[in-house]
Amino acid sequence: MSDKVLLDYGSGGRASQRLISELFLKYLGNDELNRLNDAAELAMSGRLAMSTDSFVVDPIFFPGGNIGSLAVHGTVNDVAMMGAIPRHITCAYIIEEGLPMDDLEQIVAAMGKAAEEAGVTVVSGDTKVVPKGAVDKIFINTTGIGDIIVDPAPSGDAAKPGDAVLISGTVGDHGLTILGTREGLDFEARVESDSASLNHLLIKLVEGLPEVHVLRDPTRGGLATTLNEITSSSNVCCELIESDLPIKAEVKGGCSILGLDPLYLANEGKFLCILPQEHADKALEIMRADPLGAGACQIGTMTDANPGKVVLVTPLGGKRLLGMLEGEQLPRIC
Amino acid sequence: MSDKVLLDYGSGGRASQRLISELFLKYLGNDELNRLNDAAELAMSGRLAMSTDSFVVDPIFFPGGNIGSLAVHGTVNDVAMMGAIPRHITCAYIIEEGLPMDDLEQIVAAMGKAAEEAGVTVVSGDTKVVPKGAVDKIFINTTGIGDIIVDPAPSGDAAKPGDAVLISGTVGDHGLTILGTREGLDFEARVESDSASLNHLLIKLVEGLPEVHVLRDPTRGGLATTLNEITSSSNVCCELIESDLPIKAEVKGGCSILGLDPLYLANEGKFLCILPQEHADKALEIMRADPLGAGACQIGTMTDANPGKVVLVTPLGGKRLLGMLEGEQLPRIC
Repeated sequence: MSDKVLLDYGSGGRASQRLISELFLKYLGNDELNRLNDAAELAMSGRLAMSTDSFVVDPIFFPGGNIGSLAVHGTVNDVAMMGAIPRHITCAYIIEEGLPMDDLEQIVAAMGKAAEEAGVTVVSGDTKVVPKGAVDKIFINTTGIGDIIVDPAPSGDAAKPGDAVLISGTVGDHGLTILGTREGLDFEARVESDSASLNHLLIKLVEGLPEVHVLRDPTRGGLATTLNEITSSSNVCCELIESDLPIKAEVKGGCSILGLDPLYLANEGKFLCILPQEHADKALEIMRADPLGAGACQIGTMTDANPGKVVLVTPLGGKRLLGMLEGEQLPRIC
Repeated sequence: MSDKVLLDYGSGGRASQRLISELFLKYLGNDELNRLNDAAELAMSGRLAMSTDSFVVDPIFFPGGNIGSLAVHGTVNDVAMMGAIPRHITCAYIIEEGLPMDDLEQIVAAMGKAAEEAGVTVVSGDTKVVPKGAVDKIFINTTGIGDIIVDPAPSGDAAKPGDAVLISGTVGDHGLTILGTREGLDFEARVESDSASLNHLLIKLVEGLPEVHVLRDPTRGGLATTLNEITSSSNVCCELIESDLPIKAEVKGGCSILGLDPLYLANEGKFLCILPQEHADKALEIMRADPLGAGACQIGTMTDANPGKVVLVTPLGGKRLLGMLEGEQLPRIC
C-alpha cells in the first residue's frame, strides 16, 4: 500500500478492498465484519440502547489518546449511560486524500484496542476518501448498540428533589488538553485527556444499587451545560457546592491563564450519577473501587427551589447561577 | 436563528439546543428522539441487521435528490439487502461553519420525508459544526438497524452456479447525474439520480419467494465491482449478457462523451437479486409490479466456469473479463 491514503482507497473498488483487508480487518476484524456484507447480522433481544456520534477533534493525536480511541470511548459511554451493556459499534471514516498511512494505522489500532477493552465488536464499517481540502485529515463516526439491563433505564428527565449529585472524578481535563495541544501551549504540569470507556464501572454501579435516576457524561458544554440539561428535563434545581468540585490544580491554572471555565470544558471519561441521597455512599464506594472512579465525590444536591436552574454555592455562602454554555468555547473538542 | 450555520450551533450549549428543537426535531422528531438522551431506548428482538454509511456527495443538491435523502436511502437499502425490515436510523451531521441555514433545512426536510416513506424513525442524532475549510459544506452519517425476516439472510457469499442474476432497473443514472451536475455539463436529455429506498419492494420479494441467495445494491464501484465482490465471496463465475444490460440511452451517451463506463458508475436505487433460475420469473413479476422495479430484467447467470470472475458476453459471442474498479473513477459520488 502507498504511504499516504489515496483517493483510490475510497473508490469501493480494488484499492478499497486492499485497505479494508490489510488495515481495517487487521485491527478490527471479527467473524461478522469479515463477511463484508452490506450490513451485519446480530443476535440481540429486548430493550436496546443506540447512540451515534461523529468525532472531528483537532488535533487528531493528543496526550491521553487519539481520534480513534476517543471515537470508541465516546459512543461506548453514551450507550452505557442508558444502563446498558454496549455490544457492537459501527465505524465510518472520512479521510482526507494524503493522510499519512502511518497515522491512519495508529488511529485504527487505537480503535481496535479501545473496542477490545470495552468489550464491543466492530460489526460494520464505511470508508470515504475525499480530495485534499474537503475534510481536515480524518473524521470518524461511531454508532453503538447495547442491551439495557435496568428498568427503567436512567434518563435525563428522572432526577428528583433530594437526589445526590455525584461525579466520578475531576472535570475539564479533556477540554484543556485539546486546547493546549492545539495551540502548542506548554503547561507547567502535563495535562492529559481523561478519554476512557466507562461501561464496566457503570455496570457495576447499576448492578450494585437499587435505583439510579440519571447517568450522563458531561462532554461538550461540560459539567455546567449537562447539569442544565438535566435540571431542565427533570424540572428540578441543582445546588452545587463550589468547594466540592474536583478540578486538578494544573487544569485550574491552565484555565485561568486562558480565561476558560473548567465547568464548561468537555470531559470524555467522567460521568454524573444522580440518585437518592440514601444510596450515595454505596455509589461512591463502588465508584472509588475502580481506577476510573477513584476521584468520585458528591458535588451537590437536587432541590425543588428553582426548577430548571443550576446554582453554585460559593465558599462564602453566596449563590451564583450557572447557565448553559452560550456560544462556542472550543470548536472541534471531540 | 441566524441565516447561516454558526460554530455556536455545534457547541453542545444553548445554541445547539435551539438548532435541535427548531430544525431537527421539527422534521425528524418522534417520542424517542424528543427525549434527547445520550442514547435511544428501542424494543427490538431476534436477528438484527445493522449498517453504517457516511455521505460526502458533491454537489449536495442534484437532480433526483440531495445529500439528506441520499443518506436515508443508502442506509435503508443496506439494511434491507439483508432481508430485513429497516426500523430505526441515527443521523450525525458534520457541518461547515457558514452553510446557509436554508440549505440545511432543505436537507433535513428531505431526510424527514425519506425516513417517513421508508418507514424508519430517527432515534439518535449528533451535530458538529467545524470552522470554515475543515469540511466541504456538509457530510452526513446514517446508521440503521432492522429486523431480519428471512433465514438464512441473503449474503454475498451465497450465490450458486445456475443462479439467475437479476437487476431491478437501469444502471449508471446516479453516477452520471452527480458527475454531470458537478461539472456543470448540460446533457441533451435530463438525467436524474435513481436514489430511492428499496425496502418495501425488497420485503415483497423475500416474502414472495421461497429462496433468495444474494441481494446487493451496486453503489460505489457500480454493477461490475459489486458482481466481482459477489463472485469472489461465493467462488462462482458470473456470465453477463451485454445486450441484456439495461442502460438508458442518455446515460450511454453521456458516458461515451466523458469516457466513463456505466457498469462502474454508482447506483442508489437499484439492486441485484441472485436466486435459483426456477424462481427468476416470479421474482421479475414481483419487481415489475413496483415502480422501483419496473425495469427489472435478467442480465446473466452464475456458472462454475471461472470462479471469482465476471465475464461479459458480447453480442457477437465474444467474451471479455469485467474486472473490479481499479483506481477512482469518481470521488464523492455518494
